[in-house]
Amino acid sequence: MKFNIALLAGDGIGPEVINEAVKVSDAIAKKFNHEINWTPALTGACAIDAVGVPYPDETHEICMAADAVLFGAIGHPKYDNDPSAPVRPEQGLLLMRKKLGLFANVRPTFTFPSLIDNSPLKRERIEGTDLIFLRELTGGIYFGEKGRKDDGETAFDTCTYTRAEVKRLAKKGFELAMTRSKKLCCVDKANVLETSRLWRETVQAMEKEYPEVTVSYEFVDAVAMRLVQWPNSYDVLITENLFGDILTDEASVISGSMGLMPSASVGEHTSLYEPIHGSYPQATGLNIANPLATVLSAAMMFEDAFGLKEEAEAIRAVVNKSLEQGIVTEDLAGKGAKAYKTSEVGDWLVANL
Amino acid sequence: MKFNIALLAGDGIGPEVINEAVKVSDAIAKKFNHEINWTPALTGACAIDAVGVPYPDETHEICMAADAVLFGAIGHPKYDNDPSAPVRPEQGLLLMRKKLGLFANVRPTFTFPSLIDNSPLKRERIEGTDLIFLRELTGGIYFGEKGRKDDGETAFDTCTYTRAEVKRLAKKGFELAMTRSKKLCCVDKANVLETSRLWRETVQAMEKEYPEVTVSYEFVDAVAMRLVQWPNSYDVLITENLFGDILTDEASVISGSMGLMPSASVGEHTSLYEPIHGSYPQATGLNIANPLATVLSAAMMFEDAFGLKEEAEAIRAVVNKSLEQGIVTEDLAGKGAKAYKTSEVGDWLVANL
Ligand SMILES: CC(C)[C@H](C(=O)O)[C@@H](O)C(=O)O
Ligand SMILES: CC(C)[C@H](C(=O)O)[C@@H](O)C(=O)O
Repeated sequence: MKFNIALLAGDGIGPEVINEAVKVSDAIAKKFNHEINWTPALTGACAIDAVGVPYPDETHEICMAADAVLFGAIGHPKYDNDPSAPVRPEQGLLLMRKKLGLFANVRPTFTFPSLIDNSPLKRERIEGTDLIFLRELTGGIYFGEKGRKDDGETAFDTCTYTRAEVKRLAKKGFELAMTRSKKLCCVDKANVLETSRLWRETVQAMEKEYPEVTVSYEFVDAVAMRLVQWPNSYDVLITENLFGDILTDEASVISGSMGLMPSASVGEHTSLYEPIHGSYPQATGLNIANPLATVLSAAMMFEDAFGLKEEAEAIRAVVNKSLEQGIVTEDLAGKGAKAYKTSEVGDWLVANL
Repeated sequence: MKFNIALLAGDGIGPEVINEAVKVSDAIAKKFNHEINWTPALTGACAIDAVGVPYPDETHEICMAADAVLFGAIGHPKYDNDPSAPVRPEQGLLLMRKKLGLFANVRPTFTFPSLIDNSPLKRERIEGTDLIFLRELTGGIYFGEKGRKDDGETAFDTCTYTRAEVKRLAKKGFELAMTRSKKLCCVDKANVLETSRLWRETVQAMEKEYPEVTVSYEFVDAVAMRLVQWPNSYDVLITENLFGDILTDEASVISGSMGLMPSASVGEHTSLYEPIHGSYPQATGLNIANPLATVLSAAMMFEDAFGLKEEAEAIRAVVNKSLEQGIVTEDLAGKGAKAYKTSEVGDWLVANL
């Protein structure tokens, strides 16, 4: 097969981790007789520097024309202390999500047997954890009307959802649950928020279309608690944009390393694959960042965007092997053990595929 | 001294745990020569059943006239599966917060040396944790305009904050930080929300009034992560209503038991003290609920509302002793160890004061 992939390396360590994912993807393509055509495009702070906006039209066109987008990370410290700067890298991210119609962010959380003791949570609490969040990504308070009143003394943000928005996200949740343990948890704050009541009534009305799926409804505060108490009691969770932002980051703690967790954002047009970690500015250019989350995002891309399960499994297998053999970057290297460079980990993966 | 305390037992296990806190408070009062006058009042589901509303005017008047309010828990399963029921116990809670002007919810999170292994988090991650959240409690998306449009197909909630609301909460945060390690963390989502930008700029402008306090600004998603990774890196945290709801519940996991954590809500009128746990309906009437969170809430009341530090310390000391000696309810009793009844724990505390 032949694929066109838009390559959005972004800022900070983005280019370094993307580079390793490209190496591994190319090696897999070669092994399985596929052809990948990569098209790099600008996004984030480096796009602001180059052309003044964080998600240029040209980048959007490249993404729209591609079979998948592989994304690194965006963000630069020069924007961090001024959240009201007129142009910010994050705006590019939000615009990209909106324009590509990426309404569902898919975030698996699982543990690696060889790394289970890296987690701040006790082994017996997390063993067997294998949950997936579906976070709504193009609605809610992120995109509602916001602004100031009373000479700037009052600020407001509006959270809005339509039934159609909830339905399309929930549909993906039900479908995913059908391929797994048939358990779906809808996370909301229906005891306080009207948008949450719309979520709950919409999901409740869909239950009859999926009679095999057992649906539970839990309040976001209770989930924030239970997620770290008994993570392996969850399977598929669906939730709105802001709750998803908070809970998926919380869930990333379970595995013990942000540097390992992949994600996908899917929707109306091209799907996007990215590590859950950020641009880690302090490590930029040092060749020390962990490339595995990006490599595993590429595996998700092979499986979900191209339907190539065997290729994805081959990537996951070699990643597991590298973890077991301790071919890891400094974030995962035990005390006294050798820490490999970003590019060395990538080289090892390619050599051992 | 002489105190009038409004006693709002509420629903579920509320009356049982309140009962033990009253016993302990009366014993402390006797020991230190104070006089407490308790005035019971209705709230929650039991108020709906009795008079049709969850926070009756009469209850409000009793609270306004009291020196402090001691609160149990509210909520009843008959309301749980219908979050849009016209009258709900939670409305009483929100109305009470609003009418009493309880704009700051104070939630300490700490560990008990004798229980540290109950936590799902590893000992080395939580040892020494002693943090306090100040959650804004009468503003934000809880109280903004909400409703439906387009024949019910669109729902919206509005999050609103004024500079004055942020200021009065932040002031408490700075003052609290001054009495502790002089570290304050402002939790927001200023990279996305206008209300968060107002929070951040307001707190930033206050920094010069408290030159000794080191303030950090962190995004809510990052805090959700770091809170379970390195809880003892935090001291005083301030945040808006909804973020506070989620993060304080998450933080309660650290101590290993919801049944131990007290809280206070303070503001314009009478302050209120309550355990952080809910009404635990399944345990109602079984005399098995853990009364310690309510007893420790009474300790906070003695110290903060009445300025009686010695009395508060005496309560905390006897609670610690009960934990060390294993005089605990079933939620804390080790495998094979005896589980004491709610009232037995209270009796033991009184006898050992
Ligand atoms: C950078 C920020 C706008 C973004 C979000 O809140 O969605 C990030 O936290 C994420 O989860 O991808
Ligand atoms: C019951 C509910 C309305 C309430 C809240 O969200 O504030 C509760 O979760 C709390 O934290 O006291």
